[in-house]
Amino acid sequence: MYAEIISIGDEILIGQVVNTNSAWLAEQLNLLGIKIAQITVVADIPANIIKSLDDASIRADLILITGGLGPTKDDRTKQTLCKYFNTKLVLNNDVYEDIEKFFAIRGIPITELNRKQAEVPENCKIFRNKTGTAPGMWFEKNGKVFVSMPGVPFEMKEMMRKYVLAEITNHFKTEAIFHKTILTQGKGESFLSDLIEEWETNLPDFIKLAYLPSPGIVRLRLSAYGKEKSKLISEVEKQVEKLKNIIPEFIYGYDNETLEEIVGNLLKSKNKTLSIAESCTGGYISHKITGISGSSDYFAGAVICYSNDVKINELGVSPVNIEKQGAVSEEVVIEMAKGVKEKLKTDYAVATSGIAGPTGGTDKKPIGTTWIAIASPHNVFAQKFLFGNNRERNIQRASITALNMLRKEILKNI
Amino acid sequence: MYAEIISIGDEILIGQVVNTNSAWLAEQLNLLGIKIAQITVVADIPANIIKSLDDASIRADLILITGGLGPTKDDRTKQTLCKYFNTKLVLNNDVYEDIEKFFAIRGIPITELNRKQAEVPENCKIFRNKTGTAPGMWFEKNGKVFVSMPGVPFEMKEMMRKYVLAEITNHFKTEAIFHKTILTQGKGESFLSDLIEEWETNLPDFIKLAYLPSPGIVRLRLSAYGKEKSKLISEVEKQVEKLKNIIPEFIYGYDNETLEEIVGNLLKSKNKTLSIAESCTGGYISHKITGISGSSDYFAGAVICYSNDVKINELGVSPVNIEKQGAVSEEVVIEMAKGVKEKLKTDYAVATSGIAGPTGGTDKKPIGTTWIAIASPHNVFAQKFLFGNNRERNIQRASITALNMLRKEILKNI
Repeated sequence: MYAEIISIGDEILIGQVVNTNSAWLAEQLNLLGIKIAQITVVADIPANIIKSLDDASIRADLILITGGLGPTKDDRTKQTLCKYFNTKLVLNNDVYEDIEKFFAIRGIPITELNRKQAEVPENCKIFRNKTGTAPGMWFEKNGKVFVSMPGVPFEMKEMMRKYVLAEITNHFKTEAIFHKTILTQGKGESFLSDLIEEWETNLPDFIKLAYLPSPGIVRLRLSAYGKEKSKLISEVEKQVEKLKNIIPEFIYGYDNETLEEIVGNLLKSKNKTLSIAESCTGGYISHKITGISGSSDYFAGAVICYSNDVKINELGVSPVNIEKQGAVSEEVVIEMAKGVKEKLKTDYAVATSGIAGPTGGTDKKPIGTTWIAIASPHNVFAQKFLFGNNRERNIQRASITALNMLRKEILKNI
Repeated sequence: MYAEIISIGDEILIGQVVNTNSAWLAEQLNLLGIKIAQITVVADIPANIIKSLDDASIRADLILITGGLGPTKDDRTKQTLCKYFNTKLVLNNDVYEDIEKFFAIRGIPITELNRKQAEVPENCKIFRNKTGTAPGMWFEKNGKVFVSMPGVPFEMKEMMRKYVLAEITNHFKTEAIFHKTILTQGKGESFLSDLIEEWETNLPDFIKLAYLPSPGIVRLRLSAYGKEKSKLISEVEKQVEKLKNIIPEFIYGYDNETLEEIVGNLLKSKNKTLSIAESCTGGYISHKITGISGSSDYFAGAVICYSNDVKINELGVSPVNIEKQGAVSEEVVIEMAKGVKEKLKTDYAVATSGIAGPTGGTDKKPIGTTWIAIASPHNVFAQKFLFGNNRERNIQRASITALNMLRKEILKNI
């Protein structure tokens, strides 16, 4: 079964907006086992929209359309859909109520343009929009399904999650599907694939594996397709258990978890606190930790020590060590971790010191050289890494690696 | 004149990769005054590629194709292009040399698949690829131009900047064009458009204005189209001067500058140093500052003070002020700025304290309430802001606002 995605929007055609809607929709449909034949971005011009609908319905059974439904553009796109599906606009009272409520909550008077958003094509199924004003529409024509949704990403996603994905599953009676993503840290894609080659080769035919890499992280997504969901779940879980025995040290979580959430939850549940001393990561670890609402429960704070003076005066790093070993060294990063832990009176501390690049590398310490230290209630240790040449990626990889080292150390102490 | 963009790539159709290439290409073409009629993503299947080329050439004069040229997929796409343009593959010695060099530098043996990347269609113009192995190709057919480029974003961008944009300008003899972007901070799009309404209305017909908003920032892009480039430049500069008189307090820079670069350059040129005390921004300002290579010349470091204890013990904030005024208050944020400046012995300091949300708001201090303080060699002051409900955006807006306040204060002292 094939689907197509049509995005209507001048913002995309002038390059002002990246088409993230299509990527998200493509992923959602793929997770249902539906392949995408083509993605098309067209201008908000009736003839172009109709041509793209015609073309898509030749190749696909399901056509998802986003955009073109804003209050100012509404008329044209909806009239075009009416013409295409041979129907007319009628007032929908439910939608009108939603729009009234939307404006009442915000204390804004409802405009004539918004009022017209309650007029919908007579022969379509309506999806109410609780986060915006344009409703979604489900049309059927010659055995093909067309779904028109707003272009605002969070409105479209809410509508998909709440109604459209379920309708698609019902209508097309797609197979049962189960996905589970295993999150790994510490090894690149090719090394990982060597390690798990035998496991991968022996996966049953109905389970597919996808490698999804990003700086410092490789996500392994298992997708099982079949008749009985319960069987798919148990088989996937069996495979995950096998994988856990092969690469236990690289798995840190599952599905949509993040390292900063996992670390935060561990600290919170154990009533422990954290401080950070950041040199090369320059505040990025703290930024990730404080991105989580409620992090003030366990995160005391950090010292960003970009100068040697700050390392010495604020964290008690020995000037002799900086002189003899350099700021990027095991001795210094361990002193940084100990220093910030003591000063901010926390149970755990993380410290980073490295050469982020693109300048500052030497033969002995090339760009990408990074020391990371962890201090726990009864332990302190450091590890050296050699990342790459790109400053931004080095900062990301060092931060991810530090969070995972911290996670492992917390688990050891539980 | 119209162009179209065709992306060949399964990674985009399964939603694994967002199609940023298209957005970048669309922007580049728009900057040349070329409109995009349609963007299409197709699978790497000959029939689909040929259909999309046929369709695009009906609507457009220029068709840019990205992707489908990786060493493993190379054959199929190039053979398809050969068939479409009625030609055959021949070995290109320049390209072969480039590929040999590419592998020699990396110390990797050249494979048979890569060797075949040196075979190119006989009747096309070749763009050599200095950052990868697949060359670019320029075809002409029935008065239309087709350009095929690699899908790897940095290879494609390098090729566009180095060769393709100039070839397009030559071939299509596009008008002279000049763009200038004015960067503003401190007012939203609608408020700004009210302020500059008269100026905008009086812009000459050949100058277009685009509003490009992002959290905390609105970029105003002027695009002038005409015959003589020198005239366009002088007219745009004249309009920029006028605008500077209308909203001088909101303009912080031009074109691709960033606030962290501008602040960094100011500090560097004046030989001054900076420290930061971050509460609600949680390390994000430090992260932005340290994203700039060479920032260790002027950035001493920061104290991320997420707990009151750290504010009191590390920055010398008065416990009485925290008790009486709350941590999110003018008194506390000023003490934070003074404290970090003194402690880290810098010329300037920035401090932030606010309620990022989504919890922690009260009637008196709703979510989004943020105090920002600046300490300079002879001055210290704070300002209160009310941002929105979204944690991530609040952190971004507070950081951008703080950097701009710092910029203004440094300029006052010069």
